[in-house]
Amino acid sequence: QGPRELGIHFGILPTGTYNAITDVPGIKVGHLTKIEGNSIRTGVTAILPHGGNIFQQKVPAAIYVGNGFGKLAGVTQVQELGNLETPIVLTNTLSVAAGIEGTVKYSLNLPGNEQVQSVNAVVGETNDGYLNDIRGMHISVEEVLETIQSAKSGPVTQGNVGAGTGTVCFGWKGGIGTSSRKLPESLGGYTLGVLVQTNFGGNLQIGGIPVGERLGKYPFKDALEKSDGSCMIVVATDAPLSDRNLERLAKRAMMGLAKTGGIASNGSGDYVIAFSTAEGLRIPYSAKSGELMQTETLRNDDMTPLFLAVIEATEEAIINSLFAAETMEGKGGKKVEKLPTEKIIEWYK
Amino acid sequence: QGPRELGIHFGILPTGTYNAITDVPGIKVGHLTKIEGNSIRTGVTAILPHGGNIFQQKVPAAIYVGNGFGKLAGVTQVQELGNLETPIVLTNTLSVAAGIEGTVKYSLNLPGNEQVQSVNAVVGETNDGYLNDIRGMHISVEEVLETIQSAKSGPVTQGNVGAGTGTVCFGWKGGIGTSSRKLPESLGGYTLGVLVQTNFGGNLQIGGIPVGERLGKYPFKDALEKSDGSCMIVVATDAPLSDRNLERLAKRAMMGLAKTGGIASNGSGDYVIAFSTAEGLRIPYSAKSGELMQTETLRNDDMTPLFLAVIEATEEAIINSLFAAETMEGKGGKKVEKLPTEKIIEWYK
Amino acid sequence: QGPRELGIHFGILPTGTYNAITDVPGIKVGHLTKIEGNSIRTGVTAILPHGGNIFQQKVPAAIYVGNGFGKLAGVTQVQELGNLETPIVLTNTLSVAAGIEGTVKYSLNLPGNEQVQSVNAVVGETNDGYLNDIRGMHISVEEVLETIQSAKSGPVTQGNVGAGTGTVCFGWKGGIGTSSRKLPESLGGYTLGVLVQTNFGGNLQIGGIPVGERLGKYPFKDALEKSDGSCMIVVATDAPLSDRNLERLAKRAMMGLAKTGGIASNGSGDYVIAFSTAEGLRIPYSAKSGELMQTETLRNDDMTPLFLAVIEATEEAIINSLFAAETMEGKGGKKVEKLPTEKIIEWYK
Amino acid sequence: QGPRELGIHFGILPTGTYNAITDVPGIKVGHLTKIEGNSIRTGVTAILPHGGNIFQQKVPAAIYVGNGFGKLAGVTQVQELGNLETPIVLTNTLSVAAGIEGTVKYSLNLPGNEQVQSVNAVVGETNDGYLNDIRGMHISVEEVLETIQSAKSGPVTQGNVGAGTGTVCFGWKGGIGTSSRKLPESLGGYTLGVLVQTNFGGNLQIGGIPVGERLGKYPFKDALEKSDGSCMIVVATDAPLSDRNLERLAKRAMMGLAKTGGIASNGSGDYVIAFSTAEGLRIPYSAKSGELMQTETLRNDDMTPLFLAVIEATEEAIINSLFAAETMEGKGGKKVEKLPTEKIIEWYK
Repeated sequence: QGPRELGIHFGILPTGTYNAITDVPGIKVGHLTKIEGNSIRTGVTAILPHGGNIFQQKVPAAIYVGNGFGKLAGVTQVQELGNLETPIVLTNTLSVAAGIEGTVKYSLNLPGNEQVQSVNAVVGETNDGYLNDIRGMHISVEEVLETIQSAKSGPVTQGNVGAGTGTVCFGWKGGIGTSSRKLPESLGGYTLGVLVQTNFGGNLQIGGIPVGERLGKYPFKDALEKSDGSCMIVVATDAPLSDRNLERLAKRAMMGLAKTGGIASNGSGDYVIAFSTAEGLRIPYSAKSGELMQTETLRNDDMTPLFLAVIEATEEAIINSLFAAETMEGKGGKKVEKLPTEKIIEWYK
Repeated sequence: QGPRELGIHFGILPTGTYNAITDVPGIKVGHLTKIEGNSIRTGVTAILPHGGNIFQQKVPAAIYVGNGFGKLAGVTQVQELGNLETPIVLTNTLSVAAGIEGTVKYSLNLPGNEQVQSVNAVVGETNDGYLNDIRGMHISVEEVLETIQSAKSGPVTQGNVGAGTGTVCFGWKGGIGTSSRKLPESLGGYTLGVLVQTNFGGNLQIGGIPVGERLGKYPFKDALEKSDGSCMIVVATDAPLSDRNLERLAKRAMMGLAKTGGIASNGSGDYVIAFSTAEGLRIPYSAKSGELMQTETLRNDDMTPLFLAVIEATEEAIINSLFAAETMEGKGGKKVEKLPTEKIIEWYK
Repeated sequence: QGPRELGIHFGILPTGTYNAITDVPGIKVGHLTKIEGNSIRTGVTAILPHGGNIFQQKVPAAIYVGNGFGKLAGVTQVQELGNLETPIVLTNTLSVAAGIEGTVKYSLNLPGNEQVQSVNAVVGETNDGYLNDIRGMHISVEEVLETIQSAKSGPVTQGNVGAGTGTVCFGWKGGIGTSSRKLPESLGGYTLGVLVQTNFGGNLQIGGIPVGERLGKYPFKDALEKSDGSCMIVVATDAPLSDRNLERLAKRAMMGLAKTGGIASNGSGDYVIAFSTAEGLRIPYSAKSGELMQTETLRNDDMTPLFLAVIEATEEAIINSLFAAETMEGKGGKKVEKLPTEKIIEWYK
Repeated sequence: QGPRELGIHFGILPTGTYNAITDVPGIKVGHLTKIEGNSIRTGVTAILPHGGNIFQQKVPAAIYVGNGFGKLAGVTQVQELGNLETPIVLTNTLSVAAGIEGTVKYSLNLPGNEQVQSVNAVVGETNDGYLNDIRGMHISVEEVLETIQSAKSGPVTQGNVGAGTGTVCFGWKGGIGTSSRKLPESLGGYTLGVLVQTNFGGNLQIGGIPVGERLGKYPFKDALEKSDGSCMIVVATDAPLSDRNLERLAKRAMMGLAKTGGIASNGSGDYVIAFSTAEGLRIPYSAKSGELMQTETLRNDDMTPLFLAVIEATEEAIINSLFAAETMEGKGGKKVEKLPTEKIIEWYK
């Protein structure tokens, strides 16, 4: 049961059916969880913006860098061209190369892409090296391919799965989390979903409760504790947004992270990748030269409800990752505990 | 009495003496409050990074654009050169020209600046046009000069003063707010102060309490309500920071704004101007060609405590502005109420 | 006679009718030239993207900062919202406040703008303080208004006029220059125009001839010579471009400046403001909430011819400003010579 | 013989000893050239900022994106932290994953890095798919390691080598090029070097001669010709520059590219990576918490000579790549001719 089911609420907008990124029609998510022996605690998560050939039917997209201490691949092309042409793959810091190679091979091998010679793989990461033998680079190209191919719609498993298998958040076991919002019809009726890979620190706050302080886990409690770490945030919406307004939307996701007590510490790699699944905005790889692109997009003035939605959904997705994660033991016998959720529910009442 | 005195706490770090931007040694603040007749409700606030000739002894600085629907003057030069060469002036949207002219004249007329032919005035604004006859452009160049010259150290008046005279925040009366943090010696012992001009909307949250929802004032409650508006945030610190790390610091101030429920709505002009008063980092206007600049700056790795400090101080400064502001009537008989602070204190207990 | 008439060619694309920014249908340009007594040598230039109420019918726009040592007003709002809502006004560095106030008053007073309370004036500048008594701030708000109102289509006067009255370029008299390109129908048939205010230095090159070196005027010839200064570049096109592609276009204008030998020296304020006049892309101030914006825009893949056009037109506009300018004497009896154009034509043959 | 030896000059500043990036003390360059069978025409080039453990002794660095249609890895961390912690590796577009994995493994395996769990590999690329079977991904991780390990100081081989083996530039055979500038002692005496991987198009101009037009190879001559492609530019200097000033320096390299007739076409991935080798600016991986960084850096005001230097060296490095490259036949029997250098020398006289 997530925090919402247990009575904690996050803002004022309603969620979608699954309270997941997959509430945005067409989105598919795949996880590969790799727990082997005493020290392999890692994985891969793939998010597909639609079910077709993404390279041939690119989606408008933007990336916002919350804090750039990270290795996210594919940033500049998304920013320059305003589109995304591959699945988004998340994994651990030292497996980005495998992530890229897998994504490139997936793209080259799709029917219709036989002549393609250039692919911009978007691969994010956080560092699971506390529990995982990250230097062992245990993710293979084939596993990345497999993850992409296994992606499906419907409910999304959260917690110690996929790229969140070995992550740590606010000193507790982190992982994958997701949440969504559905705007009322009067505000457009659009759906927006967020998926996060949580591996960062700060001063945890849940539903307004200063959980970090009450539990005695907060930054700088003593000189030894660290709040470093990273958060990958993927935002999908069916609202018809231009790349510029997707960038503005992405920027607000960091405000949702802030509400959980995150501080984007020096060592954090905090990135937001946002895209629109609106069918009318697909960017075909091949088009007749000189042919104009006809698009219908939301006006600047109508963006504010989506800004609220992404803030709420990001906050909830992060807390969801903590509620779903379980205690894990890993590399060198180190153990990261599950957040004591019952206590928090108690306090919240 | 501010929220802190009434028992609400914001984070874990202690404040400075005044819980104000002026806790950073050398900082001076001046206010000019203009309340005249039924419809003039505006003013000017000036922040001076040090007591000397700022043009001759520039300070390292950065500006971060939270949302750029605003008219802040002086942005690109601060970003390009990494320094600030004038006082920072805040006023209303349509008085930016007066703000620039006043700041330029102030600078040209300082002893030692007789040959100066180029001045980069940094002038911020929010739109007080709900209560104020903003189209009347009631701020004069002389009033800007006067505000700069009246700036002083010590406690800072908050609420309906200076550039915050006519502002509105979360549907309640906003204004000027300030707060500070002092890092423990083990983390460097630095002081960081924030001053805000609050004129924005969202879903107000105070000390974790969903105040906006409980009071029935939150965005999109009905189609008529707006959450637009702006927030100017000025961050000062005596920590010796490079311009790059000042930019990173500035970026985090928006995370403090997020914790109050701000959403950086489409129509917001949300800007953060951050500078360091560290004496060793002053940038002399005149220097011998080829002479290297010798500086001592904080390493990236030591930035995180300051990130936490700016988040906490920004959150508190915004809430301080609301607690200090009083009900005001203005243009066209419109009235904006004071935040019902007693109720909030009640809830918080 | 310009360099083109004298036989120098700049690239491969044909010009428009006037070889001026006004070749883009709808563009109007106004100049106010202020030469008074021994030391006033300054002025104002206004560029209007169309003949209507620009605030009510905004145009897609972008600003690129080549080097940010300058005081250009209005930058962040153009970048955030992707549009321009006022005429562009150019003047001298210390008259930016007058430029803003004039532009704001012009906008507030237009029929239909009676309720407007926020205007983002875009005002650029270069520093004419070598020949002009710039500290005297000799441009009035009324003169700015007058310049805007006097703007007209058709041929554009170049050289010592408007905002270029007192400028210096590569050590010779600079000023206002303009040029245009018309793409062949097979590449879209679009027109692109550039207007520049030239006040910068470097190693002058014209039509490939190293003019600076041959005439003994180039940077660092001796330790005393400076190459500082600025260049404002305004780019207009009727090609239907998104704000993102306008930003990419703007970025290329600096490549045209590079071909004249400009080096964007430390003290340069080099800015490019680009906008599209395509009627289908106008952004109405008032629109029904939730109504989508229907647009037809050029695809990324079709941008390259426009990139070439803006590089060629910027190079030519800068050289045109030098050919059109005449020797001028100003403040303190200082004199700046006209470029010896005959010699250059000779060399070019 | 390069263009300089044949009498073409590029600007006014003198070169270093080798007219190569290795004129900057400490820089090493390695090439791996892979020409196999009929269709493998690719390679790797590695640039090492110094001879020690770069991860432990990072160098101040910046990356500027000229046009972001490319897959450069490592961008955001360099921009966020202002430093470079690995060799720079250049290769082909689809071998970036191999480049990253090789660079990461190189770093993990250096003595002293046994505990390192996070490495920001900077890997650039251009697309050699016209002559090379790029979809075959013929670069292995081992070959990347080998290239890094083989890097050496002294003269640098240019033309069809390393990452330039299969590239095409302005319709002629491109490749690797390099050049340097040494400032006079009165301007600081610093050395700056540039290395380029040329694979782009435009309207070629050499020493002011419109070579593209005279040889009938220029963009849009007919609808079939393309000018797409990319240019990787690496800039090294021993001048003690802050990361901010390195970014400004990087930005100017694109102005050197402009002087060769490059237009940064839509499909270009044009990136500039700049770093300083000044020993006093090394950033140690491990430092005592709270300890300030003591640095001596060049003042903004003294940057201009370096701006000129990087423009000149980039222009010359690109032309050097063309003069050094030789006719090559590759994939599918396609052939790219050597630039007819004799004709150009003739014209230039």
